[in-house]
Amino acid sequence: RIGEMAKSTQLIDNEVFRAYATYTAIVLLKMMLMSLITAYFRMTRKAFVNPEDTAAFGKGESAKKFLRTDPDVERARRGHLNDLENIVPFVGIGLLYALSGPELSTALLHFRIFTGARIIHTFAYLIPLPQPGRGLSWAVGYSVTFSMAYKVLKTAWLL
Amino acid sequence: RIGEMAKSTQLIDNEVFRAYATYTAIVLLKMMLMSLITAYFRMTRKAFVNPEDTAAFGKGESAKKFLRTDPDVERARRGHLNDLENIVPFVGIGLLYALSGPELSTALLHFRIFTGARIIHTFAYLIPLPQPGRGLSWAVGYSVTFSMAYKVLKTAWLL
Amino acid sequence: RIGEMAKSTQLIDNEVFRAYATYTAIVLLKMMLMSLITAYFRMTRKAFVNPEDTAAFGKGESAKKFLRTDPDVERARRGHLNDLENIVPFVGIGLLYALSGPELSTALLHFRIFTGARIIHTFAYLIPLPQPGRGLSWAVGYSVTFSMAYKVLKTAWLL
Repeated sequence: RIGEMAKSTQLIDNEVFRAYATYTAIVLLKMMLMSLITAYFRMTRKAFVNPEDTAAFGKGESAKKFLRTDPDVERARRGHLNDLENIVPFVGIGLLYALSGPELSTALLHFRIFTGARIIHTFAYLIPLPQPGRGLSWAVGYSVTFSMAYKVLKTAWLL
Repeated sequence: RIGEMAKSTQLIDNEVFRAYATYTAIVLLKMMLMSLITAYFRMTRKAFVNPEDTAAFGKGESAKKFLRTDPDVERARRGHLNDLENIVPFVGIGLLYALSGPELSTALLHFRIFTGARIIHTFAYLIPLPQPGRGLSWAVGYSVTFSMAYKVLKTAWLL
Repeated sequence: RIGEMAKSTQLIDNEVFRAYATYTAIVLLKMMLMSLITAYFRMTRKAFVNPEDTAAFGKGESAKKFLRTDPDVERARRGHLNDLENIVPFVGIGLLYALSGPELSTALLHFRIFTGARIIHTFAYLIPLPQPGRGLSWAVGYSVTFSMAYKVLKTAWLL
């Protein structure tokens, strides 16, 4: 058992894998933050979707008026969904990329640009910044994942 | 080839990784179940979103009336999206956590609490239970993932 | 360091893992393509959701008319969400399955059927094909993931 335990821990001792683990944790935590931001807007704007969530604001008709959509809530939700659409491919393809034996410096470049782009994307969506701010930050993250996928397919290709 | 095959199977012989594999499979199957629950409500409530899905109920205007939203369908869909938002970070961070060399008992505690919390969350959403039932089960799962991310970042940190 | 680097690269030398990497990259790239398809429909149908995205079409009221939903945009978005709901479990359970020591031929069969089913599902959704075309392609992909989950739980079970 000890031998096996040691073997499995070695993956996290590999520097490229450690970088992958660090940036994946950061970017997934950033995505999780979107839940809190949505909850914050729901509370402050008093805009809910489930009847049971408005029970604290009174009974019957007086609570029903809080079952509504709010532009800030919807904006945070769209940012969250965009994170899911883009961070899921990064996490999946990034793992395979980290195991495909890239140079540490090249891997770090990919992970840093993606993480920076997604953080800028969140600010661009929530503030909101004028376009093409959000569009560009989205495209940069997208391109990084695409570049990693190319390396994975070149290294692993077995159809 | 046999040597490599053996090597890759050893990861699944590691007890922490086996626990991760077990709970990840359970929690992803639970998430997949939401598709069936949504489909069940769509059929029984006759509430569809795609015109081609209502063709079996007649042609033209008679089928069009089934292109509508239904509270139970929407509730199941929200539960499904909430699963995606929370189970994706668990699966990604949990993998890194399982490879970061935690004690088996500590890892099992994390995986069990998360899985239990998400199962309770689904019941709380679908029944629905009065708040803060759903909110608390969400927060417990969220905290477990956060705790695993902390361990990952402490072990792997390479920015 | 060199020894560890070599060890981590060996995972990608394992044939089952290479097949997993290939099909996971393909299926995640296919999912990412949905973003471009949605963007294409938003531009050609001039149907946006964020006020800042319509600024290029004029100011004030003249731009406001492009803040609307469009059936083609919504269809692409539903296809994208369905991908997330089904490809996330495939990627997570598929990784564990690839590490559970399946025969290469059995693994390839799973990966190929899933990938084919999801590509057909996308065409069935976007064209759209009459039902049960989309429903069947969805069910085939779902069943493949279920079959892999069964093998994972049988091999790894540690609750």
